[in-house]
Amino acid sequence: MKSKLVMLVVGLWLGCAQLVLAADPLPSWNETAAKQAIVSFVEKVTKPGSPDFVPVPERIATFDNDGTLWVEQPMYSQLLFALDRVKALAPQHPEWKSKEPFASLLKGDVKGALAGGEHAIVEIVMATHAGMSTAQFEQIVKDWTATAKHPRFQRPCTECVYQPMLEVLAYLRANGFKTFIVSGGGIEFMRPWTEKVYGIPPEQVVGSSIKTKYELRGGQPVLIRLPEVNFIDDKAGKPVGINSHIGRRPIAAFGNSDGDRQMLEWTQAGPGARLMMLVHHDDAAREYSYGPDSKIGTFSDSLMAEANTSGWTVTSMKKDWKRIFAFKE
Amino acid sequence: MKSKLVMLVVGLWLGCAQLVLAADPLPSWNETAAKQAIVSFVEKVTKPGSPDFVPVPERIATFDNDGTLWVEQPMYSQLLFALDRVKALAPQHPEWKSKEPFASLLKGDVKGALAGGEHAIVEIVMATHAGMSTAQFEQIVKDWTATAKHPRFQRPCTECVYQPMLEVLAYLRANGFKTFIVSGGGIEFMRPWTEKVYGIPPEQVVGSSIKTKYELRGGQPVLIRLPEVNFIDDKAGKPVGINSHIGRRPIAAFGNSDGDRQMLEWTQAGPGARLMMLVHHDDAAREYSYGPDSKIGTFSDSLMAEANTSGWTVTSMKKDWKRIFAFKE
Repeated sequence: MKSKLVMLVVGLWLGCAQLVLAADPLPSWNETAAKQAIVSFVEKVTKPGSPDFVPVPERIATFDNDGTLWVEQPMYSQLLFALDRVKALAPQHPEWKSKEPFASLLKGDVKGALAGGEHAIVEIVMATHAGMSTAQFEQIVKDWTATAKHPRFQRPCTECVYQPMLEVLAYLRANGFKTFIVSGGGIEFMRPWTEKVYGIPPEQVVGSSIKTKYELRGGQPVLIRLPEVNFIDDKAGKPVGINSHIGRRPIAAFGNSDGDRQMLEWTQAGPGARLMMLVHHDDAAREYSYGPDSKIGTFSDSLMAEANTSGWTVTSMKKDWKRIFAFKE
Repeated sequence: MKSKLVMLVVGLWLGCAQLVLAADPLPSWNETAAKQAIVSFVEKVTKPGSPDFVPVPERIATFDNDGTLWVEQPMYSQLLFALDRVKALAPQHPEWKSKEPFASLLKGDVKGALAGGEHAIVEIVMATHAGMSTAQFEQIVKDWTATAKHPRFQRPCTECVYQPMLEVLAYLRANGFKTFIVSGGGIEFMRPWTEKVYGIPPEQVVGSSIKTKYELRGGQPVLIRLPEVNFIDDKAGKPVGINSHIGRRPIAAFGNSDGDRQMLEWTQAGPGARLMMLVHHDDAAREYSYGPDSKIGTFSDSLMAEANTSGWTVTSMKKDWKRIFAFKE
């Protein structure tokens, strides 16, 4: 009787274990080298006794956002947000009618507005991202993400996220990883929705920022967003942001452009098993196809060369991803 | 037979539950109002269905370090560290023999060296904290904390931590809280040992910082520490640091000085149940007694007045703490 019970329990346990083993954690990935690279890395670092075993607290994985987790074409969503904010704020700024870059923007001429280069972008960002409290800005972002739609896919930007990458995030977390966003985008623009969309809490979001100032307004403490750049979390800024916010080196890093190069170099330079991956946008039919000559999300020839020399995994959206979005088969 | 087995299982389960309930999570605290404030706050925010219930991801607690978690008298441990580094580096800097504040320091005249005020401190910090890679600095800090001793207690500074506060950290974490350090001290000075000493991982440490720069040295990526202030995480800087690193408002905050005032105000200004606590150093026999006139860890009369008006809990080390250090009964 007792031995039968034990056998039953062991049998059930083995059954469950097999079920867990059998479930594919990355069903939206084709059976190609990219998927194999992810799975074999995770198996190596989580196998107790393996020479590549990494204790749970050190399982840090970082993800770029624009172009790595969600769509960045035809322009960054945060720029779409800023343009919408310019329109919404225009009635309070009659002077914008004759002041660039706002005048062009309000006439619908985005290209003309951005012709002013970095200076024009900073003007637009400061006019739309500063001057309010952090709580007010959070609400503005929440309202925008709830209503704005991607121009091509006609879905909220928060739905234009890559299903294969959501699976990687979940797979890593199921294996004891802490997942972080390390993006050139605004930290406060991402935090209001990353937990819901990616399962990444605000304290695990690293990004660019403007300065804030603590004040008492009507006896109530507020943090006021100032029109002054604090930190640019891009290119050589990414390892700096990682060090500042995380304080340890990732063992896995995911990007898609020249802006992620230093993050991948920094990740690789640590000891033991490492996974460096770049998403290559080569699927114009299902998403976009862009490379060395793109205005945003540049994937330069020298980045491709470094990826090849350094053994980084380049994921082809076309060949490696079975599906791209959850909303589309 | 079956019902007996069920009864046995239920009985065992109840027994365990009672054991857990019976164990005092704060054995180093006397049965006073301070302990009661902590326990009743935790019970309120963790009880499902309670109007004050807070979901696990929002259970954020922040702790100042110097004077709140570890001893800060007769001087900040980080200043002890800097002074030791000046001595260690002196052979490489013959010019220091005739250059203040180093000349005084090397003669053992700390008071004279610090007479130069903030400028002197910045000189000492930059000479000892900058100019190396982040990895090198981490090793220097590890070596120092392993060997340096507190001048009065003759123990490593990492043992001069308050046992009652270690219990609060563990108690909060056992109740689903994420615990963060938010200190005016250097973020990179704390991270090498906070996980071991407090159970707080590097990514949950917020502090003051100098700038770093990503470089390739001999083909290897390094982050070089620059002699330039990046952020001062003190006073009105604490809510700024909390917003930058955590991105949500704490529901509990622990401090001990005027440097923590804004962190407690910021914590209190959110909705629902909140716990704001200040450690009052009033125990010269077992630790130190200092208040409004102290050079460091100032507890001003106006802070005490704000604590009373705002309902913050002021913990008396003398009356509320049964023991102070783990190494001393």
